[in-house]
Amino acid sequence: MNLLLLEKKDFIGAGKVLVSGRRFEHIKKVLKAKTGTMLSCGLINNRMGTAIVTGFYDDCLEMEVTLDKDPPKPIPLTLVLALPRPKMLKRIMESVVSLGVKDIYLINSWRVEKSFWKSPVLEKDNLEKYFRLGLEQGKDTMMPNLYQKRFFSKFVKEELPIIGKDSLCITAHPKTSNICPNDVKKKTTLVIGPEGGFIELEVKTLEKSGFETFSIGERILKVETATTYLISRLFT
Amino acid sequence: MNLLLLEKKDFIGAGKVLVSGRRFEHIKKVLKAKTGTMLSCGLINNRMGTAIVTGFYDDCLEMEVTLDKDPPKPIPLTLVLALPRPKMLKRIMESVVSLGVKDIYLINSWRVEKSFWKSPVLEKDNLEKYFRLGLEQGKDTMMPNLYQKRFFSKFVKEELPIIGKDSLCITAHPKTSNICPNDVKKKTTLVIGPEGGFIELEVKTLEKSGFETFSIGERILKVETATTYLISRLFT
Repeated sequence: MNLLLLEKKDFIGAGKVLVSGRRFEHIKKVLKAKTGTMLSCGLINNRMGTAIVTGFYDDCLEMEVTLDKDPPKPIPLTLVLALPRPKMLKRIMESVVSLGVKDIYLINSWRVEKSFWKSPVLEKDNLEKYFRLGLEQGKDTMMPNLYQKRFFSKFVKEELPIIGKDSLCITAHPKTSNICPNDVKKKTTLVIGPEGGFIELEVKTLEKSGFETFSIGERILKVETATTYLISRLFT
Repeated sequence: MNLLLLEKKDFIGAGKVLVSGRRFEHIKKVLKAKTGTMLSCGLINNRMGTAIVTGFYDDCLEMEVTLDKDPPKPIPLTLVLALPRPKMLKRIMESVVSLGVKDIYLINSWRVEKSFWKSPVLEKDNLEKYFRLGLEQGKDTMMPNLYQKRFFSKFVKEELPIIGKDSLCITAHPKTSNICPNDVKKKTTLVIGPEGGFIELEVKTLEKSGFETFSIGERILKVETATTYLISRLFT
């Protein structure tokens, strides 16, 4: 936890919060904070600043909060991801949010196992939990938007061209010799397939919607590794 | 499995192999291969090529192998990593090997929990298992070298200057305003700290050995995410 993420309901007065539960335990046991300790903090979807511990109780702590700076800039990326297996999805959500991604579409694809769509990981409360972990890690307060799209063809043909309008539209696909651009310095919509890749028909549908395919060379990466790798490559 | 990784002992004659166990199960159940199916293959620490299924048995399959091309180039990076927690170590080993890293040092640091050094993950056979998964993923045959160094100060003062000789020497450290270079196009020795970072004394010791500190900006990433992020940034 590099940033204590606060909610409106934590406030008990102007600039005063009570923090309990997971965050309290972490501050006590891992950060070993005491009265007077200063931590980085931020209010969800709002500004960031510092919090000073003013009171330590059995199950909560009181802090004085100053919110005096803006959260870091998001990266100008819309990430469209074939739904990964649940365990990997958790980690990917946390890592892409820590990297500053704010718009995420989870989509179906031929090689996405049907059972993945039934995972509790996809429930709103759980996703929000991973997002919070990502924000706490990356020192950010702005929650991402996540959309779940279960009909590949309808989504790619009807919605994706609108989503990708005025942005660089690319599909990461190992089976092509076009090499992915780097440091693009512009709004980008990046589509990443499932383990095993998109099938040819899906690649064609994406191409018809304006998404050119790019690879990162001879090596093939796991979706989890590829996601971070591509974000770094596109935005450094 | 994007590449079937073969060992010398799989060969039963010139260009003929018998494959059993985990690889057999994967080829049968996931890749759904039949007689005549052609797969990418490679011999450990040797060349790569194709394998054609010539016989399918209950617990193994026979293949005809042609090894006619070289494995992909390694990336010119020596990765020095404060020992991560075992579960994360597994994933990091697999991902960095899939990315083409060939020299890895796992080192101690103030914030590395002592228990991590006792993990079975660090046993030679287990590490080799993760390396194989990484090679199969990244389509490569060249095994990396891994060294375990339990004495931070001795290692950084005596060995690291020799390891880093004639290379760009950098420590990833969030608490600095120097921004990490990208696309360095040269031999690099990259030191990455534990969750929570190196302590100041460790950073100073690294600096004395010629390792300047760099951050990647305001955001702080998990070691796992940071490793892939930095490799992508340094070598694209």
